[in-house]
Amino acid sequence: MARFGGAQRVGGQPRCQPLDKGRVGGVQHGRACAPRGRWRADGGVLALPRTVEEVACVVRACADARVGIVPWGGGTGLVGGQIAAPGPAPVILSLERMRAVRAVHPDEGVLIAEAGLTLAEVQATARDAGRMFGLSIASEGTARIGGILATNAGGVNVLRYGNARDLCLGLEAVLPDGRVLHGLKRLRKDNAGYDLKDLLIGAEGTLGIITAASLRLHPIPARTGAAMLVVESPAAALALLALAQARLGEGVSAFELIGRTGPEFLARTMPEVRQPFARPPAWMVLVDLGLPGAMDPAAALEALFVEGAEAGLVSDGVVAQSEAQRAEFWTLRESIPEANRRIGAVSSHDISLPLSEIAEFLDRAGQALARIGEFRINCFGHLGDGNLHYNVFPPEGGSRDAHEHQRGAIKTCVHDLVDGLGGSVAAEHGVGRFKVGDLERYGDPTALEAMRAIRAALDPAGIMNPGAVLRAPG
Amino acid sequence: MARFGGAQRVGGQPRCQPLDKGRVGGVQHGRACAPRGRWRADGGVLALPRTVEEVACVVRACADARVGIVPWGGGTGLVGGQIAAPGPAPVILSLERMRAVRAVHPDEGVLIAEAGLTLAEVQATARDAGRMFGLSIASEGTARIGGILATNAGGVNVLRYGNARDLCLGLEAVLPDGRVLHGLKRLRKDNAGYDLKDLLIGAEGTLGIITAASLRLHPIPARTGAAMLVVESPAAALALLALAQARLGEGVSAFELIGRTGPEFLARTMPEVRQPFARPPAWMVLVDLGLPGAMDPAAALEALFVEGAEAGLVSDGVVAQSEAQRAEFWTLRESIPEANRRIGAVSSHDISLPLSEIAEFLDRAGQALARIGEFRINCFGHLGDGNLHYNVFPPEGGSRDAHEHQRGAIKTCVHDLVDGLGGSVAAEHGVGRFKVGDLERYGDPTALEAMRAIRAALDPAGIMNPGAVLRAPG
Repeated sequence: MARFGGAQRVGGQPRCQPLDKGRVGGVQHGRACAPRGRWRADGGVLALPRTVEEVACVVRACADARVGIVPWGGGTGLVGGQIAAPGPAPVILSLERMRAVRAVHPDEGVLIAEAGLTLAEVQATARDAGRMFGLSIASEGTARIGGILATNAGGVNVLRYGNARDLCLGLEAVLPDGRVLHGLKRLRKDNAGYDLKDLLIGAEGTLGIITAASLRLHPIPARTGAAMLVVESPAAALALLALAQARLGEGVSAFELIGRTGPEFLARTMPEVRQPFARPPAWMVLVDLGLPGAMDPAAALEALFVEGAEAGLVSDGVVAQSEAQRAEFWTLRESIPEANRRIGAVSSHDISLPLSEIAEFLDRAGQALARIGEFRINCFGHLGDGNLHYNVFPPEGGSRDAHEHQRGAIKTCVHDLVDGLGGSVAAEHGVGRFKVGDLERYGDPTALEAMRAIRAALDPAGIMNPGAVLRAPG
Repeated sequence: MARFGGAQRVGGQPRCQPLDKGRVGGVQHGRACAPRGRWRADGGVLALPRTVEEVACVVRACADARVGIVPWGGGTGLVGGQIAAPGPAPVILSLERMRAVRAVHPDEGVLIAEAGLTLAEVQATARDAGRMFGLSIASEGTARIGGILATNAGGVNVLRYGNARDLCLGLEAVLPDGRVLHGLKRLRKDNAGYDLKDLLIGAEGTLGIITAASLRLHPIPARTGAAMLVVESPAAALALLALAQARLGEGVSAFELIGRTGPEFLARTMPEVRQPFARPPAWMVLVDLGLPGAMDPAAALEALFVEGAEAGLVSDGVVAQSEAQRAEFWTLRESIPEANRRIGAVSSHDISLPLSEIAEFLDRAGQALARIGEFRINCFGHLGDGNLHYNVFPPEGGSRDAHEHQRGAIKTCVHDLVDGLGGSVAAEHGVGRFKVGDLERYGDPTALEAMRAIRAALDPAGIMNPGAVLRAPG
């Protein structure tokens, strides 16, 4: 992956005057590194504010000086939204010191968290209060709440609990002029004016900096269970999901599709990960349940297996007999991205499709890529959401470098197909800097114009995360 | 209620040139009347477009001529968002002829509906396809999908399925410059740029006109049931809700609080409505369940009653033994607003509160209103959402007219209390024209400035539903 930006200072001195250590909670010349070490945000100044007032102070100073700001959470984003673009060095504004749990209201199912808390910390706080926070992603130990909301993160439980957006009741944020939006409501219903919360969520730091959020908690399901079921095809998997939801309603917490290549990569690169089947099947699904106390998850999964087998959808399966086995299933699923990294992808795609177009997409994409070259496909993802991670690898024994020249053609091929079937080429990871061109190519022109108008209205100087989501003007 | 506007023409001829009958699907001078006959939208021109292109044509013409547009759906809004303000006559743009079901995808749980379909028609279409549309409001036979989304309608099943916003996957809309936003996606996950969908939803027609929507359907619960349970207090009702959700998860579809005054008004004005208790209790809740096939709703409700009684929360109850009895419970609940109308309220409030502040609010509001005068309070609503309809009536035998002079003091008293407890004074009915001043008084100033900036950016001429949500500039 390319590294963006460089540790240039603007004119020898940072132009951002008030950024002295005492005033904004610690500012230094420096950089922030992504935990995977792949990307860095290099800037003339690294600001580490401790309070929303200090964030506002930094933003006002940058607005006055017309210096760009790149907000920094856990650095785990996958589309370059957190890295500085070429050009004048921005201020890197890290939220890592804003880590307070401001309030927990277990009876209301509400937790008010500052942006610098990691997702895992929020999950643990909710659990300690007898509730759960229904978002789960592989990087939850590092990803921070501010970034999770700024990118509207998804993950494995969207099927049941929704995206980050659906789990947020209100925001505190610093707008591009340095003013503070006070919106930490604890309300389920509030139609008092425009939905600024949802505009800021998913704007990837280009319309303001989220400093705290009022998060929605759910009851912890009384009983949980999981199964790995071998399905004939992705279409069969979708039919099985419909069966499961008809039987169990919202009790289906996750429904993950796993193609053969993922377990094969795992067997090679991470043999310590236990596999449920001696030979990885072409397709399997990980079904996770969270049920009321009156229902038995293992029995429900066995009944689902029987019904699925009778309908010709399922041919084999393993039902977890303990929480440890359930955790093993999830370890397999969550280790696939790391196995992918160890093998080395030519091209990776975070796509979503209308559910009934998934089978069609997989057929056509396989055929179209075969016309470009010989590849292995690792397709896995959140089937219930229509969200696939569709990753293209060199053939057995091949090297990704030998396919560098095909990367553009692969990307265009996959994305054109997705777009033609009514899908999205930025499903859960966002646009960042890497997909700005994709948004321009595939986005609705009227929508893009409206986005630009909104951005210009709220951030006329264009200082907020410049170059992310929308190309910087001029 | 005041009637706004008058059937004035602008300068003798409508200034909106292209509005001839053939071109925009039928245009006439006229008015649209709310079904309850309380309010009218009077304009110089009534436009009745049949297609999105015709809507765009009307909007472009109005933008060129700087004539205001008031969008008109079913006319059932309660805050005057659909009625013309004083001043130059606007064009009334009714969506009533855009009534196509463009597509139904039962396997995906998606229905694409034009704005002029009533909610009841959408519900019926979903049901015919073996699915359900999870929004239910008293006016569903008349309210249209365009207005429902424009106002982010709520209703009795928000607890389980969310507001209108949560049930919409994408929009087609005409923006204030007449350009068409093509966003009828069928996707569960799409992070490609700013969330314009949620900005338009709840903007009450001030940022564009919704012409069609991609709606999310749910599986029909296998088994349903309902109970009316007598609770000691609103606090006990909340504790009972927590018990119910711990037992039954998302199976709790609705949890409605009903104070004594509602059934008393019903007994007087609509004696044909059957009541479950000989003497209305101070507080009762209507609990509605939709469960997987493996669970028995009546047994679950009886178990909840026993557990609630043991915890000292519930003292009496009736469990529906048939769908007909369940329907009777709902008839009681849904008839309360009509009973209120027949009695005649001095002041009505659509408020929401953090769940743990509800008991406090009811105590303090009762005391504060007693200092203003003698009133009867009818409080009922969607307890699980913290959304109460808090309506103030003259004392037994009194007339609302005798309290006209107290209306302002009552409103200020209730709204100040709500605001002080972190609530909203526009919970599910929106801002419209009646609550513009409330939004200015209670809204976050930074949020209001951001709303104005967005409105000015998208609608510089200020033609879209002028005077709704935000005061027209100048």
